[in-house]
Amino acid sequence: MTIPLARQTAPVLCSDDDRDRAGRVLEQYLESARVRAAAVGAGYGRLWEALSRCARGGKRLRPELVFISYNGLGGTDPVAVAPVAAAFEMLHTALLLHDDVIDGDFKRRGVRNLPGEYRDLAAAEGFPEDQAAHRGQSVAVIAGDLALTGAYRLIATAELPGEVRLQLLEELDAAVFASAGGELLDVEFSGAGHDPALQDVLAMTRLKTAVYSFEAPLRAGALLAGADQSVLDSLGMVGRLIGTAFQLVDDLLGTFGEEGRTGKSTFGDLAAEKSTPLMVHARQSEKWPQIAAVLAAGVHSSPQAEEVRLLLERCGARSYVEDLVRSYSAKAQEALDTSNLPPLLVAALEAFLHRAVDRRA
Amino acid sequence: MTIPLARQTAPVLCSDDDRDRAGRVLEQYLESARVRAAAVGAGYGRLWEALSRCARGGKRLRPELVFISYNGLGGTDPVAVAPVAAAFEMLHTALLLHDDVIDGDFKRRGVRNLPGEYRDLAAAEGFPEDQAAHRGQSVAVIAGDLALTGAYRLIATAELPGEVRLQLLEELDAAVFASAGGELLDVEFSGAGHDPALQDVLAMTRLKTAVYSFEAPLRAGALLAGADQSVLDSLGMVGRLIGTAFQLVDDLLGTFGEEGRTGKSTFGDLAAEKSTPLMVHARQSEKWPQIAAVLAAGVHSSPQAEEVRLLLERCGARSYVEDLVRSYSAKAQEALDTSNLPPLLVAALEAFLHRAVDRRA
Repeated sequence: MTIPLARQTAPVLCSDDDRDRAGRVLEQYLESARVRAAAVGAGYGRLWEALSRCARGGKRLRPELVFISYNGLGGTDPVAVAPVAAAFEMLHTALLLHDDVIDGDFKRRGVRNLPGEYRDLAAAEGFPEDQAAHRGQSVAVIAGDLALTGAYRLIATAELPGEVRLQLLEELDAAVFASAGGELLDVEFSGAGHDPALQDVLAMTRLKTAVYSFEAPLRAGALLAGADQSVLDSLGMVGRLIGTAFQLVDDLLGTFGEEGRTGKSTFGDLAAEKSTPLMVHARQSEKWPQIAAVLAAGVHSSPQAEEVRLLLERCGARSYVEDLVRSYSAKAQEALDTSNLPPLLVAALEAFLHRAVDRRA
Repeated sequence: MTIPLARQTAPVLCSDDDRDRAGRVLEQYLESARVRAAAVGAGYGRLWEALSRCARGGKRLRPELVFISYNGLGGTDPVAVAPVAAAFEMLHTALLLHDDVIDGDFKRRGVRNLPGEYRDLAAAEGFPEDQAAHRGQSVAVIAGDLALTGAYRLIATAELPGEVRLQLLEELDAAVFASAGGELLDVEFSGAGHDPALQDVLAMTRLKTAVYSFEAPLRAGALLAGADQSVLDSLGMVGRLIGTAFQLVDDLLGTFGEEGRTGKSTFGDLAAEKSTPLMVHARQSEKWPQIAAVLAAGVHSSPQAEEVRLLLERCGARSYVEDLVRSYSAKAQEALDTSNLPPLLVAALEAFLHRAVDRRA
């Protein structure tokens, strides 16, 4: 979908060099751990290889936000920032791994994830299906713990003034604390018989994803740049609004996106009976009994998914969530316009917001 | 079993005050998080209550070892030590939670654990058995992540010189790294068809438990006391040997212990077909086909467990592992006798070793 915001020429506040630097720190961390692990045992070395593949897969949004914020606030030492940027990518890796365990997913973005790899290995060894699945999930619990530890280690060993390092560790803690709370709400809301209000679902999403993906990386960049509390507050608010818009677009793409582009199954969200904003709206509509009937029978194929998609359009859920995206984008834009942030940073975050909402994957 | 080592009057290197101090830091951490969580949502507050119950349940061996080492090396500032001691108890809580998920256990020490609590809540809400079990395990993944984060946070925010804090965080990292490697080996070794050698099983146990429970707490106390590398090395070696003896006794108690005293099911280990030293020895014996037949049929009751116990005694597995306990105790004693550690610390660790091997629970 296209959001009617005026386009501007975006300043580049996260350069290719910045990205490469964060990428190299991440690679070095993973490779050094892999070597140590291989000395413990071949299987442990392979686990770190699998974990490295997880950490390599993403779009690196979080490191980018750390750099945008740092550079936009006048920071000049990218070497000091790189481990912190890498730490947020590692945190992302950890949370995705444990989220996949919790959601019982053996694929992510259309390809086999780490639980899927280890499930298939166990199945090939002759384990029955349920035991193989549990082994895949067990290894993912372990891998997620290592990635979570990695996020702390990358910040704890960064060459930074002690006070800044401590503030960054607290930012990381706050992100994990929020994300765990959101994940718990997601568990509580899932399954039949739960009917959370839209604001509860948005609060869940904010906690589970927006804090660690948007608010915390932006604030971390600002802490590194020595920004004051009012700047931290502004960036937290902007991060929350951009993050909410981003997640709403994810919700739309997860249901209406083209599978080839998103790499996501377009009926995975439907099959899991997730409480997404689309579903929250649909539950209030007269089409709900029809939608509920299809969901209850199980969404396992494209025709079933297509039926749900049509019903979600006809009951107005799609346009309702598209309106929500526009509304959160406008709020983010307003927060940026009225903020005390430097104009270059405002422009870069506007460009980021555009990319976040105007995407097909 | 009783190990024939000369008893000495043990010096008290971890006082009741020390224990209380570590306990208070742990309680304050948990209570402060619970209050913040309850502000997010009632369910999140309850999760922290459940996590607090997990953290309260143990014997606090790890905090005790931090204090023994610190006080035995002349440390004089228990206030600085308490958060580090508490951190190792928090790490223990995290690893037990994720271990229970991996082992599919819904009880620990005879009582319902956190996955069991949340499984039963979901069942009461009407979820089918397998979904209820998965929800219990999902919540335990989240709780374990919070406890793991808590361990880092307790050290990261301790009022310590920056260099010492960094060394302690590295010690914590090394402990998590080892434990994850051991947990992976445990997953690899479990299930039918695996026949690891004794040394592989002992290496797995050392990685999974001895490093984080014995070596790392002892070394952490020494780092706090400003000890040099040779003292750290000695304590690492002593911790490894005591830890191995401790785990071997756990193996014996898990199979031959009195359930009323240990709080452990005396056939849980048997039912899970765990590769323990008892089993490794039994696999080499002529009784193995009989033992394997009982295990393959499933050990669900006391008479079946009693049959396996009898067979494990007759094939010599029990006395073999008892000999191993004596051998590791003697090695630990020798390492203490020939170490460069202060006599009071040596005496306290001897007493700890006695308690570790001469216990019925």
